[in-house]
Amino acid sequence: MILIGERINSGFKEIREAIVNKDEDVIKEWAKKQADAKATYLDVNIGTASAKVDDFLWLVDLVQNAVDLPLSLDHNKIPVLIEAMKICKKPPLVNSITAIDEKMDQLFPAIAEYKASVIGLVMDESGSPKSTDKRVENAGKIFAKIMEYGISPEQLFLDPIIMPLKYMQDQAKEILLAASQFQLFSNPPCHIVGGLSNVSNGTTKKKLINRTFCIMLIAHGLDAVILDVMDTELVDAILTAELIMNKSIYADSYIEAFRK
Amino acid sequence: MILIGERINSGFKEIREAIVNKDEDVIKEWAKKQADAKATYLDVNIGTASAKVDDFLWLVDLVQNAVDLPLSLDHNKIPVLIEAMKICKKPPLVNSITAIDEKMDQLFPAIAEYKASVIGLVMDESGSPKSTDKRVENAGKIFAKIMEYGISPEQLFLDPIIMPLKYMQDQAKEILLAASQFQLFSNPPCHIVGGLSNVSNGTTKKKLINRTFCIMLIAHGLDAVILDVMDTELVDAILTAELIMNKSIYADSYIEAFRK
Repeated sequence: MILIGERINSGFKEIREAIVNKDEDVIKEWAKKQADAKATYLDVNIGTASAKVDDFLWLVDLVQNAVDLPLSLDHNKIPVLIEAMKICKKPPLVNSITAIDEKMDQLFPAIAEYKASVIGLVMDESGSPKSTDKRVENAGKIFAKIMEYGISPEQLFLDPIIMPLKYMQDQAKEILLAASQFQLFSNPPCHIVGGLSNVSNGTTKKKLINRTFCIMLIAHGLDAVILDVMDTELVDAILTAELIMNKSIYADSYIEAFRK
Repeated sequence: MILIGERINSGFKEIREAIVNKDEDVIKEWAKKQADAKATYLDVNIGTASAKVDDFLWLVDLVQNAVDLPLSLDHNKIPVLIEAMKICKKPPLVNSITAIDEKMDQLFPAIAEYKASVIGLVMDESGSPKSTDKRVENAGKIFAKIMEYGISPEQLFLDPIIMPLKYMQDQAKEILLAASQFQLFSNPPCHIVGGLSNVSNGTTKKKLINRTFCIMLIAHGLDAVILDVMDTELVDAILTAELIMNKSIYADSYIEAFRK
């Protein structure tokens, strides 16, 4: 499982303040804590804490120097993502692109050049899809476009767009079905990823709902997730789900082995 | 979700001794504890504690008088199951039949007469199936046979036969796919059930593995389960999985509401 640590995000007050105050220690600490918890990538999201390109580049460089992990570059401006890709020491995961031709044409040459990976959100000009079919249609558009640019399926992380259970209770089933179908585009398949915390927005049992939905997603092909990697029970559930899906070999001590 | 309490089973030493000694209090206590934990049915399995029909009838009567719940009659002899059905105050769930014509022809007239339900294990003369296809083929045989006897799909609980993860790690995926396909036999579909504890046989993380696989099964159509209904974390996971599958309506207090 590819675990993408969500914590360096200005949506968290502590991170926001650290970015505004250029407090390197707080950022480094969160980078290290997530690395210790076995994150595969660290997501770096400056959000509304600063609109300056240099501030995002400062944050990216700070994180990549704190830990020996590749980054998930999380920004809503394509030129900023491209600038950040240029300074990454390890091929990053670019978070994210949508199924809009103009945007893909702007980003994908750089993805190919820097041998990066990219999260493809299956939404388009009309917004977030509500049905399985629309999700698969948009995924197909992204898939066709990576082929044009010589980007391999292994570099693509399709995201079915996880919706909040509390407000859109009918969506989870559509998302699971969409994830299943994403696996059929190629062999070997592209990755399937989701921003897990979205499912529990506004609920009172966030960790339980995150964990339960994550298990279901893994049973439908998810092999990467943006998550709170410090949530031990969630990670234990993920390890168990992968074991059940026969993606890791059974050992009585499968959890201890991972943590070692 | 239909929760079938597994605890009155002579495989548990305490229950075995209570059966042998005709210690009614121990049995009653376990019946009440499972009822308090919101079991829908109580499984009653005398196992090797006694081969006498009268002892099984004593146990069945004891349990049904202790709590106001229907029973799951768990015995490997069809004539004994039929005798027990006759004394049940509420239509029981008969646990179980296999896809063998002679046995189904022996049991199904009584299922129809007593308006009982029946667990159909998707195995046949050749033993337990290893593939999805064989499971679905055997399920089809059972399904065709209930139709002959005027038994409705709602009275049938198809069991894909859960295998131990530790010894047959490739089986879980087959079981999930089989469960998905069982849903397609009719509309409304039959029930889909499993003996959950089997999956964690011999492992050191039984509860975590049970819980994780149960969530995956629910995402593939399971709507009934033979379980340790006293395992609160398992029941919480089940309630959450049903919420995600849109089978219950979201409320912040969905767990507290169930326990009330």
